[in-house]
Amino acid sequence: MSPKTQEPVITKISDLPLDEAKWITLKRIDYVDQVGKPRTWEVATRKTRAEKAGVDAVAMGNILLHPSRAPATLIVIQYRPPLDAYTVEWPAGLIDADETAEEAAVREFKEETGYECKVLSVSPPQAADPGMTNANMQLVMVEVQLKEEDAEDMEGPEQRLEDGEHIQRVIVPLSEFYDRLIEYSKQDRMIVAAKLFHFAAGMHFAKTQTYGPL
Amino acid sequence: MSPKTQEPVITKISDLPLDEAKWITLKRIDYVDQVGKPRTWEVATRKTRAEKAGVDAVAMGNILLHPSRAPATLIVIQYRPPLDAYTVEWPAGLIDADETAEEAAVREFKEETGYECKVLSVSPPQAADPGMTNANMQLVMVEVQLKEEDAEDMEGPEQRLEDGEHIQRVIVPLSEFYDRLIEYSKQDRMIVAAKLFHFAAGMHFAKTQTYGPL
Repeated sequence: MSPKTQEPVITKISDLPLDEAKWITLKRIDYVDQVGKPRTWEVATRKTRAEKAGVDAVAMGNILLHPSRAPATLIVIQYRPPLDAYTVEWPAGLIDADETAEEAAVREFKEETGYECKVLSVSPPQAADPGMTNANMQLVMVEVQLKEEDAEDMEGPEQRLEDGEHIQRVIVPLSEFYDRLIEYSKQDRMIVAAKLFHFAAGMHFAKTQTYGPL
Repeated sequence: MSPKTQEPVITKISDLPLDEAKWITLKRIDYVDQVGKPRTWEVATRKTRAEKAGVDAVAMGNILLHPSRAPATLIVIQYRPPLDAYTVEWPAGLIDADETAEEAAVREFKEETGYECKVLSVSPPQAADPGMTNANMQLVMVEVQLKEEDAEDMEGPEQRLEDGEHIQRVIVPLSEFYDRLIEYSKQDRMIVAAKLFHFAAGMHFAKTQTYGPL
């Protein structure tokens, strides 16, 4: 028996005073700029940065290999209250206090997808949205070797709502990656995460550009 | 005469109460999830979203074409107080209240780089950091036709500090794009913005992957 499900609905949006915020906060930065002028900047910051890694989060750029199907990638779709929309992202998560980025990637990927993965590369730390926050992340490229009997398609309109963690997993052939993100963007109440979109746009650009060999 | 310049320095970081914040604020979202359970989420939000576009910001993925040089892209390096570091990004900016994304892209690109550009494509809105904020942006791909006499290299260690807006512009051949971002990431007090890194990583992946035609 699956639980009764419904579309998520926001019931109230209210100011969140600093002393009631558990996960994020606001800071005022006073600094002296390049020409010696005192300035201020407003920043939103997480209260949870992992001490060992010094980085907030990892995202797992993943390649699914299957004996008889084209190489694909697994994306996750979940309701995100900040946007009141379903976001399309690569699996991602916060790094725990005692973890490295690589350890967090393997753990989170298993939790969100059920698959064991092999780490191919770990990017340098990247700034998530540098004008507004100090949030940072690392892109961990991983590879998953599927078996012949593994399902081709985790997609289905009902799966988004029935999943216990409310995360829908979708397998997309890499050759359709960019086009599928464009299609998702056209759907009501859906938005693609910028990092995922930029990776796919970079692949698409490399494939379709006519400037000559890059 | 150029103004006396120095490395930016943070003098104080303090809590920023909501009633003193001009640009950003915190909200508590109460919502009912897919299985009918009431939940809350904490979100950082900009107070400045452009009404016409319904989107906060644009970034300009740009291609510089020159009669006798390889296709290149222009990146900007600037001190970002939230990270107390120099970030490497594509030119970007907030969309004004009465602008479309395309208009903002042309205006901001001219302001930050001095170049007129031709818009090639405008992406759907993308979520900047969907777990933490509702900030969104559109990637506008633009092309710039340089003249034979245009400078090959805007780079120089002194330029970062002398620039009036404290923005250093660097021209990078597209063939070196990813490797240069990796190199920047190794430098002290420098961090690459996630969107830029992901686009370059997507290009790099498309060029170097060995899974077969995608």
